[in-house]
Amino acid sequence: MIHMSLDELRDFASGILLENGLSSAQVPGVTETLVAGERDGCGAHGIYRLLSAVRSMRLEKINRHAVPTVTEPGPSLVRVDGDRGFAQLAFEAGRPLLIEKARRYGIAALALNRCIHFAALWPEVEAIASENLVAIAMTSNHAWVAPAGGTQPLFGTNPIAFGWPRPGQEPFVFDFATSAIARGELELHRRGGRQLPPGCGIDSDGNPTTDPAAIAAGAMLPFGGHKGSALALMVELLAGPLIGDLTSKESLLMDNGAGAAPIGGELILAIDGSRFSDTPASADQAEALFQQIVGQGARLPSQRRYIARKKSLAEGVHIPTALYEELAGLGR
Amino acid sequence: MIHMSLDELRDFASGILLENGLSSAQVPGVTETLVAGERDGCGAHGIYRLLSAVRSMRLEKINRHAVPTVTEPGPSLVRVDGDRGFAQLAFEAGRPLLIEKARRYGIAALALNRCIHFAALWPEVEAIASENLVAIAMTSNHAWVAPAGGTQPLFGTNPIAFGWPRPGQEPFVFDFATSAIARGELELHRRGGRQLPPGCGIDSDGNPTTDPAAIAAGAMLPFGGHKGSALALMVELLAGPLIGDLTSKESLLMDNGAGAAPIGGELILAIDGSRFSDTPASADQAEALFQQIVGQGARLPSQRRYIARKKSLAEGVHIPTALYEELAGLGR
Repeated sequence: MIHMSLDELRDFASGILLENGLSSAQVPGVTETLVAGERDGCGAHGIYRLLSAVRSMRLEKINRHAVPTVTEPGPSLVRVDGDRGFAQLAFEAGRPLLIEKARRYGIAALALNRCIHFAALWPEVEAIASENLVAIAMTSNHAWVAPAGGTQPLFGTNPIAFGWPRPGQEPFVFDFATSAIARGELELHRRGGRQLPPGCGIDSDGNPTTDPAAIAAGAMLPFGGHKGSALALMVELLAGPLIGDLTSKESLLMDNGAGAAPIGGELILAIDGSRFSDTPASADQAEALFQQIVGQGARLPSQRRYIARKKSLAEGVHIPTALYEELAGLGR
Repeated sequence: MIHMSLDELRDFASGILLENGLSSAQVPGVTETLVAGERDGCGAHGIYRLLSAVRSMRLEKINRHAVPTVTEPGPSLVRVDGDRGFAQLAFEAGRPLLIEKARRYGIAALALNRCIHFAALWPEVEAIASENLVAIAMTSNHAWVAPAGGTQPLFGTNPIAFGWPRPGQEPFVFDFATSAIARGELELHRRGGRQLPPGCGIDSDGNPTTDPAAIAAGAMLPFGGHKGSALALMVELLAGPLIGDLTSKESLLMDNGAGAAPIGGELILAIDGSRFSDTPASADQAEALFQQIVGQGARLPSQRRYIARKKSLAEGVHIPTALYEELAGLGR
């Protein structure tokens, strides 16, 4: 393992992105997302994702010089055309106006269009929740997931993320794929030659299987049966047709077998709870809920990430040597 | 079985509500919800719910003469204080302003406070989607559900409903509890002496069980493991602390063992998609998604309800004689 401080990791990642021709406007946002994943102990959303980011750039599937355009399709709405660049810069471009509108109107929505998605959603909801707003985000990606009861891939892994501000500490955040497992997990199992648990997918004949290669050729499945499937469809509609963007199937067709990162839309909602309620009382209720979860030995989402973050900020992170060398090779 | 036309059922239900002292302002909304459940083939949310509605009224847990108050806590926000009446009248009071604000600002939210919830959420989202707006609704209820990995009830069955307008036909709608089963299913199994499938709940020692009585004494479980549990917590936060209302645990404490319907909050979002996208193109994308679900033999939520509705509108409905007689007894 290679030990690096977070600043060293930041320099390493941004150097590779710059050497691959990514504009200096896009590099900081993409770098912070990669560093945040590694810092928070989410290897599948950490520096490892630089492989697919650079691959997608080299395939010319990403506009390295994207210039996002911000418009206001309604008083409570913000829209950013990402110009086929990474979603991070589009989000940065739209974020201040989303926050301003949520505070002014009580609720606001930000639509990111024509963006490349290659990472987790929690950095977005955490950023909004840190402004004392409640945040919900969702995005579609490539059609890898069959609807419950079906056999053909139709949905993306379609994650939903949620952020809730907590006074004096990091927000409560969750972020999960509406598929039974994340696409990254499927790929890591395939690379490692490991079987998946039952219920993750079906082969190309529609039969249940635990073999990641067979699932990749067939279809992943939603989490939680027909309820998870309904949520996956909701994300598909809200991050695509609602905001005038691609469905996961259209994104995969556009990829045309190249294996690049998905392109499409993302919808982010922000709500100003101080309009509705006396914030201290509400915060006390919410903290009591969190305490009653942790107090009975159940896991509160984001807890593990924040523990890992504290450690990484103090001690840095460890990158597998093989991954480090593969990544370093991308810079040459 | 007793055969009734929908009009006969409407008269029957509204007569019982009136005879039990419910104000004439509240009767139509409650009646329509009961009739809609029966009409759409959802027995667990149909006329059977009149039992708990009347029971809650007789326990004085419901204000029979509630007068909702509508306020505007922000330009894009509507709030209705339900005055401890049924949620139906509060929703009717707030709906026109929610729709107007969604159209004017692009997105709007309606908070219903201090309402009695005894029925499904889909009538609300269907009503908004019928106005060509996208709708999301959620509500908490009584603390019956333990978080994933826990053993103590903390969440309500916390349903989420979604509505998507479809040109020239009924909206696409789903509505599901974030618990593995609905509370009504648990009660129907208990009344019928039938076991539940595995994964629905735990006994009071925290051990998995399929016995509905043991689950009622222990805790129900969320659907879909830790992901469903995270969603249940999101609903708990959004329909409670966010809008200055009770958590499911607080609602159950207020019930104080009476076994009445839950009191608390509901959050409804409405989004005007025509602000973002050329509606015909988006509608085509959405219809293609629906078609690809149905075309591969998977079930599209709300399909079965609309088929049942068509049949009920033409032929009326059949009510079990024992239930009919029990209900008729409530009117005397």
